[in-house]
Order: sequence, then structure tokens, then C-alpha cells
Amino acid sequence: MWRGIAIIYASKKDIADKLKEVLKKDYPVYVFKYSEANFEYIWKCYDAIVFTMALSGAVRTICNYAKSKDVDPAVIVIDDSGKYVIPILGAHWGANDLALLISKLLDVEAVITTASENFGVTSVEDFSRKLFCKILNVKEIVKVTSALLKGEKVCVQGLEKLPEGVNGYVIGEECNYKVVLVEKEPERYEENTVYLKPYKLAIGIGSKIETDPAVIKKGILETLSKLNLPLNRVKIISSVREKVKIVADELGIAFRLVTREEIEAFSDECLSPQSEKLKEIGLKGVAEVSALIAGGKGAKLLLRKITYNNEVTIAIAGFE
Amino acid sequence: MWRGIAIIYASKKDIADKLKEVLKKDYPVYVFKYSEANFEYIWKCYDAIVFTMALSGAVRTICNYAKSKDVDPAVIVIDDSGKYVIPILGAHWGANDLALLISKLLDVEAVITTASENFGVTSVEDFSRKLFCKILNVKEIVKVTSALLKGEKVCVQGLEKLPEGVNGYVIGEECNYKVVLVEKEPERYEENTVYLKPYKLAIGIGSKIETDPAVIKKGILETLSKLNLPLNRVKIISSVREKVKIVADELGIAFRLVTREEIEAFSDECLSPQSEKLKEIGLKGVAEVSALIAGGKGAKLLLRKITYNNEVTIAIAGFE
Repeated sequence: MWRGIAIIYASKKDIADKLKEVLKKDYPVYVFKYSEANFEYIWKCYDAIVFTMALSGAVRTICNYAKSKDVDPAVIVIDDSGKYVIPILGAHWGANDLALLISKLLDVEAVITTASENFGVTSVEDFSRKLFCKILNVKEIVKVTSALLKGEKVCVQGLEKLPEGVNGYVIGEECNYKVVLVEKEPERYEENTVYLKPYKLAIGIGSKIETDPAVIKKGILETLSKLNLPLNRVKIISSVREKVKIVADELGIAFRLVTREEIEAFSDECLSPQSEKLKEIGLKGVAEVSALIAGGKGAKLLLRKITYNNEVTIAIAGFE
Repeated sequence: MWRGIAIIYASKKDIADKLKEVLKKDYPVYVFKYSEANFEYIWKCYDAIVFTMALSGAVRTICNYAKSKDVDPAVIVIDDSGKYVIPILGAHWGANDLALLISKLLDVEAVITTASENFGVTSVEDFSRKLFCKILNVKEIVKVTSALLKGEKVCVQGLEKLPEGVNGYVIGEECNYKVVLVEKEPERYEENTVYLKPYKLAIGIGSKIETDPAVIKKGILETLSKLNLPLNRVKIISSVREKVKIVADELGIAFRLVTREEIEAFSDECLSPQSEKLKEIGLKGVAEVSALIAGGKGAKLLLRKITYNNEVTIAIAGFE
């Protein structure tokens, strides 16, 4: 589950574009040219970065930004001749998985360098991301992920069923290490336990003027279904288009109309780059900005805008 | 040409030891355990580092030390399952070459990620190292190496014949970029030109008490021959063993006897780790320390001690 993948190319734009084509069906993907890229923004706002350039250049670049396993994005390199895809940061935090996916999609060799015995385990961060949760005690992550890598099972409490594609976890209470879903901050934090609090979700919608509300509704439901999110996680739907209220009403969810003035006055450091279309009409964003405005102060972009049926854009923000 | 290779392993000591075995015939090689390694020392004092561990751990480690292309060592990773050898820093500065050598010696796959068209060119730094020279204007290196990588030929002046295994250079004067060997600092530095000044060399010798001087002489001559160094580059030979004077006299080179007290009083941050033998007799070094003492203040270790015929150690220091 990737909320946003940044592809950064030095000279081989063709590889970057090809990768975008194969990934964009399932993930929000943005391509940046190395010499023009704002790395502060990319490092902070994307959860995976794919460099298409020589490894040592990528290493020198990320050295300026790398902080620690629990906050850095997963980083991957595809070499200029498109022969290898190599996870270089966050191997166990998603980079191995993404490299294997790219390896399959582009038919290039994945260079996996972590020991194979602990391969395929889902990091706590990725687990939390899949559930659209906030990690309440970030410091405990490394301990629990290390236990996972050593082959320990981690018990999950507060959840009926594990999300698909998750490895290393069991529903239960009898483990040394745990992940616990809570509705509010616990009074006491147990050791070796990571606490996750599900975000409330705000959906932001952009659409063509002529788009049928039924298409918007279908887009929302299919997106939620793909993300394994039940409808009751969504607290508000938001748009500049009044007709989206029809959809919200049908789904029994609150609606927030956003004005062009509100969009103009809004700012968030992690918005996706403007599309050509948005540049034309002079808007910094629609779906993402609507979701963030509806989520209120402190809302966080959890899914960058994705396009449905070539006429609807959908973004998800989380708030508490 | 590597003056010293440091191998750092996390858990797979067997891979590190195997690599040391195949490299030590030709290069000074030292193995360090990751958790005990002094990275400040290794980063400063070795010109190549091979990590045998997962790539992302190695990347996080080197991020703490990497400064710039012209001062950092070449860095390579061998993954824990011993499947890949991957240059991760200084690809064009020797790391590609060393990775290819290791690939051949250990029969593992070299993951080369730089564009193939500029492959195999010798960096200016490596060129200088092969000739045991000091680079007088370090700042100009990046320009000349970039030109090499773009396929420009670089002219070499002040040298009759190129060293073996050097690519991208011609003897001559008609190039846009040059490397010039000089005996002393030029009055004016030309643009796009790197100036190299050959070091004067001091050879330090350690040997068993019973070693025949003829073996020491042979060891010195074979070492110089392997390094393509003419005898007249050596200004002094030094040892704690008086009989080494016989060898120096035969070769027509000055001799400097070093006392145990001098060795005890001497310190240099880049000495190789003590061998078990040296620990036993309580000496921090013999060949390296002798070479550095003979070279005088400011002398620099250019070749870590290598062992000849299991009874002689030879180290080379450079001085001005």
C-alpha cells in the first residue's frame, strides 16, 4: 500500500515514464526530474522514492535527508540501463516489496540484499498504513519490527481480521510483541507494544462538470473496497462540485462544499504537483485540497489523488 | 591499485574471511566486525571499504561519513547471502573496478549501475594513486574526471609511459583536459589541469630474526616491480633489524635503523590494526611505523604492510 510514489530520473526519462505507466493504475505516482526536484518536499511527503540513475548518485543524495528507519521513505534505484531494481533504504519497511513489484512489472532483476529467512514480513509502519492508522508511540516500532525480522509472531488486538498481504501477524493476545488498535490514547503504554489509532477519513472529490454522480459514487466505493476500508470510516465527503452532495447523501455521509476562494487560501506542504489541467485553471489542487479542508486543522494526506474513469479524482485525508 | 581495503561484516564472517583470502595475495586487506569497527578511522585511512551486510544498513552507515567524491573511499556491498557485489559509492572512482574484481574472484554477480558507455575509465584519483603521487590541486579533479566520463581523452605530461590498466589517458599535450606531473608546485595552475607531484618513498621492513637478507631484497624488488615503481623513487629503507642495512647498501639506498623506543613513542591515526603477533610482543607496528618514521614529519602511509614469503612485511610511506 503506497500513498504516493515519487520517481526521480537523472537522464533516462523513458524509464521513469514507463514505470509510471505500469504503477499508476494502482498507486498515485509522480515523476520528477533530478535537477529540478525539491527533495525536502519529496522526502517528507512521499512514502516511496524510486531513483532512475546510478546508485552512488542516489546514495549521495539520500544521505542529505536520511534520518531513521521509522520516518524515512522506502528508497529504490533503477540503474540507467534498466537492468536492475535495487532497494537501498527501508528494505524491510516496504522497499523490498516495491522492488519486487517493479521487477515483475518491468521484467528487471530485483537485487534483494537482506537475509532471505526474514523475507516478506510486513513492517509495523506498513501495517499501520494499510489500516490508515496513526502510530501513537513511534519509538516502539523498531523493537517490534526487529522481533518480526527475527521470526517472532506479533499479536494484533482490536481487529477482527488481518488485512490481506500482511505477514508476521496473528489476531490474538498471547505474544511477546503486540500491535493494538485503540480508539483513543491509552492511559498506560505497555512495553513491546505499538498502539495504532484509526484516522477518521475525509474524501475529497474532483470531477468534470458533466460527470454523472453515479460514476462518482462508484469511484468512491471501488476505491474504498480496494483499500479495504469500510464505509463507516469515512466521516465526510468534500468537493467544489455541488452535485457531489447527492452522492454523500446516498451514502449517508456528511458533505462539505468547498469554494474556490477556500482552495486559493489553503496551503499544505505535501500537495501533489499541479497537473497541466490545474495549472490552466489556476488551482493548486482540487481533490487533495478538498479532503484536507474537510478534515480540518491537522488533517494529513493519506492517499494522493487517484483518477477514476478518466473523469473523477479521489483523495483521502486523515484527521483525529 | 588499492593501498588498503577494509572488509566490514555484520554477521557473515565467512564471506568476509573468504574475500580476504582471495584479495590478500595482491592487496593489504583487513577484516572488521561491524559492531566493533571504528568508522572514523576506517573512512579516513582505507581507500576501499567492502561491507558484507544488507545494502540499506551499509547506506545508513556511510551517510554519517560521506563527504565528497574526491575524498571518500570507494564503497562496495556484498549481500549476506553472497549473491551480489554492488558498488555504492565512488563507482567511477574505483568501486566499479573493485566490484568486478570481487565478482570474478568469488563468482558473484556484480551489480554495475553506471551507464555502460563511460565504463572502465580510470579516475584521476586512481591514476594518481597508481603513480604514488600527491594531487596538488584537488578541486580540479571533479572537472577532469567528468570530462573523462563524457569520453574526452585526458593528456598526460611529465610521464614517458602510461601505467598499465589505465583507461582514458594519452601521453601528449593537445587535450582540453590534462594531468601534469611536476617535481614541485607550479607557479601558476592552468585550468582543467590536475597537477600531480610524485611522493618520495620510504620503505619500512619487518622480518623474522632468522630471515635471510636476500629474501628481504627479493621482497622489496618484487613489490616495487608489481607497483611499477622504479628503484630511484625510494629514498630510504628502514627497519628495526640491523641486517636490513645490508639490503639497503646493495640497492644503493639510505638506511634508517629504528629503535623499539622510537616505535613506542610514535603514533599515527592510520596504522593497520595490530596482528596477534604484534600484540604478543607489545608493538603497535613494525613495517608501517618504520616507513613513517623514516619518511619524517608529514609522511603518509601509501601502502599498508603486505607480507612476503611469510617472513617479511613491507610497507611504503610517502613524503615530500
